[in-house]
Amino acid sequence: MAVKALEWKDGALMLLDQRVLPGRVSWLRLTIWEEVRDAIRDMAVRGAPAIGVAAAYGLALAVQQGSNFEAARAELAASRPTAVNLFWALDRIASLSDLSFDRVLAEAQAIEREDVEMNLALAAHGATLVAFGARVMTVCNTGSLATAGHGTALGIIRTAFAQGLVSLVYSCETRPRQQGLRLTAWELIQDEIPFRSIADGAAASLMHAGSVDLIVVGADRIARNGDTANKIGTYMLAVCAKHHGIPFVVAAPSSTLDLTIATGADIPIEERDASELTEIEGVRIAPEGCPVFNPAFDVTPGELITAIVTERGVNRAPYEF
Amino acid sequence: MAVKALEWKDGALMLLDQRVLPGRVSWLRLTIWEEVRDAIRDMAVRGAPAIGVAAAYGLALAVQQGSNFEAARAELAASRPTAVNLFWALDRIASLSDLSFDRVLAEAQAIEREDVEMNLALAAHGATLVAFGARVMTVCNTGSLATAGHGTALGIIRTAFAQGLVSLVYSCETRPRQQGLRLTAWELIQDEIPFRSIADGAAASLMHAGSVDLIVVGADRIARNGDTANKIGTYMLAVCAKHHGIPFVVAAPSSTLDLTIATGADIPIEERDASELTEIEGVRIAPEGCPVFNPAFDVTPGELITAIVTERGVNRAPYEF
Repeated sequence: MAVKALEWKDGALMLLDQRVLPGRVSWLRLTIWEEVRDAIRDMAVRGAPAIGVAAAYGLALAVQQGSNFEAARAELAASRPTAVNLFWALDRIASLSDLSFDRVLAEAQAIEREDVEMNLALAAHGATLVAFGARVMTVCNTGSLATAGHGTALGIIRTAFAQGLVSLVYSCETRPRQQGLRLTAWELIQDEIPFRSIADGAAASLMHAGSVDLIVVGADRIARNGDTANKIGTYMLAVCAKHHGIPFVVAAPSSTLDLTIATGADIPIEERDASELTEIEGVRIAPEGCPVFNPAFDVTPGELITAIVTERGVNRAPYEF
Repeated sequence: MAVKALEWKDGALMLLDQRVLPGRVSWLRLTIWEEVRDAIRDMAVRGAPAIGVAAAYGLALAVQQGSNFEAARAELAASRPTAVNLFWALDRIASLSDLSFDRVLAEAQAIEREDVEMNLALAAHGATLVAFGARVMTVCNTGSLATAGHGTALGIIRTAFAQGLVSLVYSCETRPRQQGLRLTAWELIQDEIPFRSIADGAAASLMHAGSVDLIVVGADRIARNGDTANKIGTYMLAVCAKHHGIPFVVAAPSSTLDLTIATGADIPIEERDASELTEIEGVRIAPEGCPVFNPAFDVTPGELITAIVTERGVNRAPYEF
C-alpha cells in the first residue's frame, strides 16, 4: 500500500495528480475547496471511493475558508454525476450536528480511514472467490489510486495474490483515459504482480482462448437490484463473460450502494469531452471535425453479475440491497 | 472514391502512408520490392485486399529490378502472416506462364482493378441487408484505404448510404493502431456520411441501448466453415451482437476465402510489438516495464456471423466454402 492517492497534510489536501501518471509523480497542494471541485471534475483524482474522500476534505477546506457550506457542498456534488460515493461522503459530513472545522476534518479523516478498512475487508471476502492459479481480468483502475488505499477490485487481486492464488492479471487499457494502461499497470509493477496490459478489444478473444478464470471490476454506483454503473467497457466484459461462462464479480464498499434507486435505468451517465478520445497527451489523433460519442460509464445489469462483494461479504444474484 | 491507398505510376508503386494519416497526407514512392515488403510489415499499407495489391506490385518491381523472383515472393509472403489476400495475390502472379515485367505488371494492375470491381459488387449485395434508416456499427478501416477502392464493410456502408438507407455510422476506434479513429473517420468525413467515433469499450452499451441495427466488419482470412480472422476486437463485437440479437455481417472479396483450411483454428494470428499499445505517436503512455499482450487479430466463429458477403452474393450460416 505504498501508493496513496491523497492525504491531509499541514492544513491542505495533498492530491497525487493522476492525469500525469505514470510519466510524472506530481502532488497538488489544494488549500481551497474550489480547487478540490476542479480536481474532481478534471480527474486529477478519480475512482469513486477516492472522489468521495476528496470531496469530504473539500468540505473541511470550505469550513476552514469560512465559505458558504451549502454552496460548497452543492458545487462539490456537481463535479461528477455518476459515482454515488461523492454524494454519500458529502451527505455524511453535512449530517454532522457540529460543523466546526475540527469536527468536519475529523469526519473526513474517518471516511478516509474507514475506506481503507472497508477495502481490506471486501478484499478478504473477494479473495474467497479466487481459485488457485487464477488468471484474473480487470478494467480501469480500482486500486490504491482509486480509493483511500488497497483498492476494491484491485484490492481483491492484491489480497488473493498475497495468498498465492493469482497467477496472472489481464489489465484492460480502458479507453478513452487509459486508466488501466497508465494506473493499474503502475500499481501492479510496484506490487510485482505478474500481468499483461491488453487493448480493450482483446478481452473477449482471451476469454475464448480459455485464458481468463475470473473477471473482477469496481463500481461507481450500484442500484438496489444490483445494476452497476462502472467505467465504460465494463458491460462489454460482462456480456462476454456470460457468453464464455466466466464468473464476473463487482467489488465496492457499501458506500457505493445507492439504496434510493431501484434499477440502473436511474443512474445518470456522464458524457465527457470528445477530446478524451480524439487527443492523447495533447497530440491530435482523429481528423479535424471528427464527431464523438464519449460516455464515461455504462450500466451492467445485475443478472450478468455473479457476485457483488462489499466489506460485509459476498452477495449473489438476485440482488436486493 | 476520391481516396486511394496506392497506384502504379511512372515505374513505381505510389503508397499513401497510412501511418501518418489523418495528420499528414504523405505518399511514398517505392521503386524496389524490398521497400514494398517493409511497407507491408510496418503497416504503411494495411487492409487485407490492399496488402494483396501492394504485394503484386512488389513482384512487378522485383522483375523490373532483375531480383530473384522466388526470393522476393517468399519475403513478401512473410511480411504479414494473417491476411490471406497477400498469399493469394502472390500465388496468382507466380502462376503466370510469362513472368516478363510487362506481363507481371499487367496482372498486378488486373488484381487492383478486379478488387475495386469485387468491392462494388459485394457492396451492392451487402446493401440489400441494410434496412431503411439503419444505424450501422463497424470496426477498423475497411474502406478505400484498405482495398484498391470503395472498400468491403465500409463499401457496403458507402453503397447503402448512397441508396439513402444508412442514418448513422458508429465507428469503433480500434486500438491499438486506431484505424477506426484515424482512417475510417477520415473517409467518412470526406464522404459526408454522418457518424460518431467511439471507444471500443463503448460498443456493447450502444447495442444495449438499442442504438445499433447492424454490424458490418471486414475480414483478413475466412476458413471453409466461415470462421473469420479480422482485426482484434471483432470477436467481442460478434459476441455482443449475438447477446443483443443484432445482425453481424462479414464483408470480403472471395480472395479472402482460404479454402485450404477447414476452421479458424488453423489461421495464424500475428502478435505485434508492445509499443503499439504503450506508445501513441511516439509518446509513452504506459509505465516503463509494462508487459503487453498484443494480438493483431482474433477469430470469430462462423456460427456468430449472420452473413458473409462476397462479390458473388450473400452467404448464410452454416457456411461451406
